[in-house]
Amino acid sequence: MRILLTNDDGINAKGIQALINELNTIAEIYLAAPDHERSGTGHSITVFDPIKVVEAKIPGIKRGWVVGGTPVDCVKLAISRLIDEKIDLVVSGINHGSNLGTDVLYSGTVSAAAEGVIMGSPSISVSLNTYQDNVDFNFPAQFTRRVVSAVMEQGIDKNTLLNINIPVLPPEEVKGIRISKLGARNYDNLFEERRDPRGNTYYWLGGGVLKEVQHEDSDVYAVEQGYISITPIHLDLTNYSLIEKYQKLSSTYFESLIRSDEI
Amino acid sequence: MRILLTNDDGINAKGIQALINELNTIAEIYLAAPDHERSGTGHSITVFDPIKVVEAKIPGIKRGWVVGGTPVDCVKLAISRLIDEKIDLVVSGINHGSNLGTDVLYSGTVSAAAEGVIMGSPSISVSLNTYQDNVDFNFPAQFTRRVVSAVMEQGIDKNTLLNINIPVLPPEEVKGIRISKLGARNYDNLFEERRDPRGNTYYWLGGGVLKEVQHEDSDVYAVEQGYISITPIHLDLTNYSLIEKYQKLSSTYFESLIRSDEI
Repeated sequence: MRILLTNDDGINAKGIQALINELNTIAEIYLAAPDHERSGTGHSITVFDPIKVVEAKIPGIKRGWVVGGTPVDCVKLAISRLIDEKIDLVVSGINHGSNLGTDVLYSGTVSAAAEGVIMGSPSISVSLNTYQDNVDFNFPAQFTRRVVSAVMEQGIDKNTLLNINIPVLPPEEVKGIRISKLGARNYDNLFEERRDPRGNTYYWLGGGVLKEVQHEDSDVYAVEQGYISITPIHLDLTNYSLIEKYQKLSSTYFESLIRSDEI
Repeated sequence: MRILLTNDDGINAKGIQALINELNTIAEIYLAAPDHERSGTGHSITVFDPIKVVEAKIPGIKRGWVVGGTPVDCVKLAISRLIDEKIDLVVSGINHGSNLGTDVLYSGTVSAAAEGVIMGSPSISVSLNTYQDNVDFNFPAQFTRRVVSAVMEQGIDKNTLLNINIPVLPPEEVKGIRISKLGARNYDNLFEERRDPRGNTYYWLGGGVLKEVQHEDSDVYAVEQGYISITPIHLDLTNYSLIEKYQKLSSTYFESLIRSDEI
């Protein structure tokens, strides 16, 4: 089995090192990770600039590259260009901080796994629910290895990624696993307004998660309650439940808008 | 009615100017657009840098800002901080180039509209299917105005964005409107490999769209055939059809992975 590892915390992050240590016992590890932290880059790709790539010599891996680009660049470039062999699975993480609910759209970690799916590989993203320093990535990495073994044995769906969020608890206090849906994440006090020495206004993104009542089957709730959350994610954003409604609207209203005399 | 306009081609793009000219006949226009082109930025947000904001004095709008950030920054900042009034609709575009199928994930245009939905406003993204210079944005802008009027009158769903792609045809040659699902977009020859003067390797993203057989109900097919495509998009990426499967896998395999002696 060949696994491509990536992340959005950068090649020197502890989370990806923990994954190397665990996953190289069950697979050949290829690694393509950003040269520095790229949190919040979502599904962005580098369109207007060259992407510098340097081979990374890291113990425990087959081959690796430091990429001067986004997490999605890493996966796209590695699968389409850097690696000749077929990759069986993309694993992204372990992110230092959770990636839950609507926040997955902003997440470089989850987006890198999504790019794996686009490039034809089943994918897994893994995040640890804390921003504290000195956290232990061993249990999350061990758990990831076991999930990888199980899904590769049982068959993982090609067009799906599994988004795993792990609570920061000693293993014996983890309550179990919930297969959950994406919940809601809203923030308050989003931006701080400041002035530079010349009096110009600028803003810093800040803010904290709003405590909200969460569906009991959501990923946010699961992790809050001490469960590991696993959410199957697909990339078809079509809202099928509204197709018929807008087809009716279209035939009664929109169609006439094209060739109206008014235009 | 109050409309927030944004785009990913930057504040000086023709597409957004065409929208101002049309939409200010039916609504108060607020505008927050990036200071330069930000194509391919997907749903990225500026986390580690300050975001500079300068008021833009543009004829035909109520208020506007040039934002030193991504399209998603523009919408998040405008709705949460810059605008006191309630925004009724976010319109993003008109993009110079189509945003179809899986490409919507990379698109700053569509992601800005998605951010509108996250911030509580129904949203519309509009793209014109060409990269040629000197294209006429008047018909696409007129069509957008009519759709906006129709959906605001008929009620647009709060958690949905409408992704509109318009073929580059004279209005009388547009075949009609298709309410479509997101299709597939794959590319070949994705990256060009080059060497810098010191012999270091770098890559440029390039490549062309692979011609593939498309579902007849897809957005890609609709635009290819000369129709305007409108796709209702939601942001819940949960793959509900796989929840049960993974719940079974979890109870038979994953649960035991947490507390196995091996860990």
